[in-house]
Amino acid sequence: MLDVKKIQKDFAILQQLVNDEPLVYLDNAATTQKPQAVLDVLMDYYHTDNANVHRGVHTLAERATKNYEISREKLCQFLNARSTKEILFTRGTTTGLNWVAQFAREILKPGDQVLVSIMEHHSNLIPWQEVCRTTGAELVYAYLKDGQLDMDDFKSKLTAKTKFVSLAQISNVLGCINPIKEIARLSHQVGAYLVVDGAQSAPHMKVDVQDLDCDFFTLSGHKMLSPTGIGVLYGKEEILNRISPIEFGGEMIDFVYEQEASWKELPWKFEAGTPNIAGSIALGAAVDYLNNLGLENIHAHEQDLVAYVLPKLQAIEGLTIYGPQDPVQRAGVIAFNLEGLHPHDVATALDYEGVAVRAGHHCAQPLINHLGIHSAVRASFYIYNSKEDCDKLVDAILKAKEFFNGTF
Amino acid sequence: MLDVKKIQKDFAILQQLVNDEPLVYLDNAATTQKPQAVLDVLMDYYHTDNANVHRGVHTLAERATKNYEISREKLCQFLNARSTKEILFTRGTTTGLNWVAQFAREILKPGDQVLVSIMEHHSNLIPWQEVCRTTGAELVYAYLKDGQLDMDDFKSKLTAKTKFVSLAQISNVLGCINPIKEIARLSHQVGAYLVVDGAQSAPHMKVDVQDLDCDFFTLSGHKMLSPTGIGVLYGKEEILNRISPIEFGGEMIDFVYEQEASWKELPWKFEAGTPNIAGSIALGAAVDYLNNLGLENIHAHEQDLVAYVLPKLQAIEGLTIYGPQDPVQRAGVIAFNLEGLHPHDVATALDYEGVAVRAGHHCAQPLINHLGIHSAVRASFYIYNSKEDCDKLVDAILKAKEFFNGTF
Repeated sequence: MLDVKKIQKDFAILQQLVNDEPLVYLDNAATTQKPQAVLDVLMDYYHTDNANVHRGVHTLAERATKNYEISREKLCQFLNARSTKEILFTRGTTTGLNWVAQFAREILKPGDQVLVSIMEHHSNLIPWQEVCRTTGAELVYAYLKDGQLDMDDFKSKLTAKTKFVSLAQISNVLGCINPIKEIARLSHQVGAYLVVDGAQSAPHMKVDVQDLDCDFFTLSGHKMLSPTGIGVLYGKEEILNRISPIEFGGEMIDFVYEQEASWKELPWKFEAGTPNIAGSIALGAAVDYLNNLGLENIHAHEQDLVAYVLPKLQAIEGLTIYGPQDPVQRAGVIAFNLEGLHPHDVATALDYEGVAVRAGHHCAQPLINHLGIHSAVRASFYIYNSKEDCDKLVDAILKAKEFFNGTF
Repeated sequence: MLDVKKIQKDFAILQQLVNDEPLVYLDNAATTQKPQAVLDVLMDYYHTDNANVHRGVHTLAERATKNYEISREKLCQFLNARSTKEILFTRGTTTGLNWVAQFAREILKPGDQVLVSIMEHHSNLIPWQEVCRTTGAELVYAYLKDGQLDMDDFKSKLTAKTKFVSLAQISNVLGCINPIKEIARLSHQVGAYLVVDGAQSAPHMKVDVQDLDCDFFTLSGHKMLSPTGIGVLYGKEEILNRISPIEFGGEMIDFVYEQEASWKELPWKFEAGTPNIAGSIALGAAVDYLNNLGLENIHAHEQDLVAYVLPKLQAIEGLTIYGPQDPVQRAGVIAFNLEGLHPHDVATALDYEGVAVRAGHHCAQPLINHLGIHSAVRASFYIYNSKEDCDKLVDAILKAKEFFNGTF
């Protein structure tokens, strides 16, 4: 298991008081904090090596390029991709999903379908809405059963018309873990591509894209201990070879004439312009940090926290938890509402106790509508959260309940 | 004028030896170094405030959001935009230019023309090649006279067919400064939009988008003392209001239903997903740093360096300088070749003396072809460069010349 006390020491930001209370940061599904080891790599880059990559022969440029490409190798191993050609650095999951939707635009025709689930994040919905709108394809939803993906519904909607299936591996609201490996098998049976939104999974559990056999997989660095503005799109080499670049500019070209240009080979043909070099290198350092802890240990730690706190939350009168009620089926995300209280008021009350949670639609309005609510509170856990943090969450909720029920 | 010795102390990276020689960093057109004040803001953000923006009510999220939007205000003032609605945070100039080209895709029809110059960077060429290819519009080039834009040629090619004019304010190879204000007036006379690639100008001279009256202006943070992975696209509000978002996801939406969504107001409708929050805030700090020095002083300093070094370079036998030969017409970028020597060999020899310059096509292959060469060496200056650096450059070139001429 994780040594949480030791881990916490790596995060200076956690050693602060918020509203005179020690900060308990439970907004990790929105973004995670960064360990000093990652920040040190970031600073070392700017203090020692900073230069533009791939284009220079001077010493700094060679060092920056080498470290940038080493980071790509780390990400390749992290996801168990076949080769670094399959690892594209992006701005984040949103950009990755938009790129895949651009690819789909070249393929989809009227009558074709894209299958998503009702639990998807807006970043995995709106690009598909747009591509369906412009191609005449249809966006089809699979719904829920017992707070998680209804696989019967999913199977019934997966047909020969389905050209793309795009799903989160872990819901950022329900906390459920979707059976991606089975879904990949089913999707490929009908000839559909499977796109995985890994924003909530890659930071929290071991992902093996070859074992999953997904066609695309996206992640965001800032949700896995890294700086903002960097992410990865994994795609199978054979598919990426067939896709046109999405952005055009320097770095991604081979020859440029006045009226036409040719592209570099993978992965560079997708990386137009100066990349987020420092962010990429720091993401590699974050992968080192996560590997040192062990992804299996991280997953077990979060399941342990959920097993600990879920019954305590379930025991609070008037508190509704969304998603599966069995902790074994959940990742470290718990969305809930308190009867009669607005989620924003609850989050504000929790902040008053130093507990940072999110309130709102969590970029999943269709899911929120489907659940018959307007918004929800969400607590989400990571490597530096302890059972004491869980207790603080429960105590703060009880205090909020008491305060509002007494006052209003 | 600038106190270069004092400025150099803000850049730890410059205090290193490269090949046993003090580093003389003259690759600023590729990317600039970052002052400690900017890096401190970056670290402070991660040590104190890091949270996702716009979506949270907890203390960290409020602090992060406030600082993110304050940074937008700083960029608004920096460019003298009318309002923060006109300031879109992007990944960099390349992304900004790709977005504008996407907008153009909605407008251009067969027979329409896009007018660029032969000196454009690939990021301001290939997006236009692609949009012309898919819309049937024509990409038209203005060429050079005396190493800079031939305004007669430009005027002759600017016609009622021209819908977009897209030009660098400063060439990253020729170092010439294009008369953007006059070009805006001429472009608007024929009803064309004027897009300005400001990657090489915004860091080095005062830019006033209202005075220039350009319709779009792009810049890259990493070329102006900021972290990698952040930039700005300025667009006139009335135009941005008419443009569809380019990327889709969280943050940029108002309401999302299963089959459709509506967008937030400007500027957020263009900012899908978690932005490069730390990068944006650090870019704001870089603007503070530049403002403290004074953009006029920076420009004067670089012109001073060019006036000092250009005659020394011109005096070297067999050395050809591209672009205008009069230092008054130049910004701090000098591309050159040494007769009989490959630019990469020259750059390697200079690196051996600690002088970091770039060699290659500088992401401007059509220009390089037009100049009748295969590549060039480029020295580019910034606030921390001194006349001693210029002397070192000249000495290192002379040494390289001697070495190669003696050896080969």
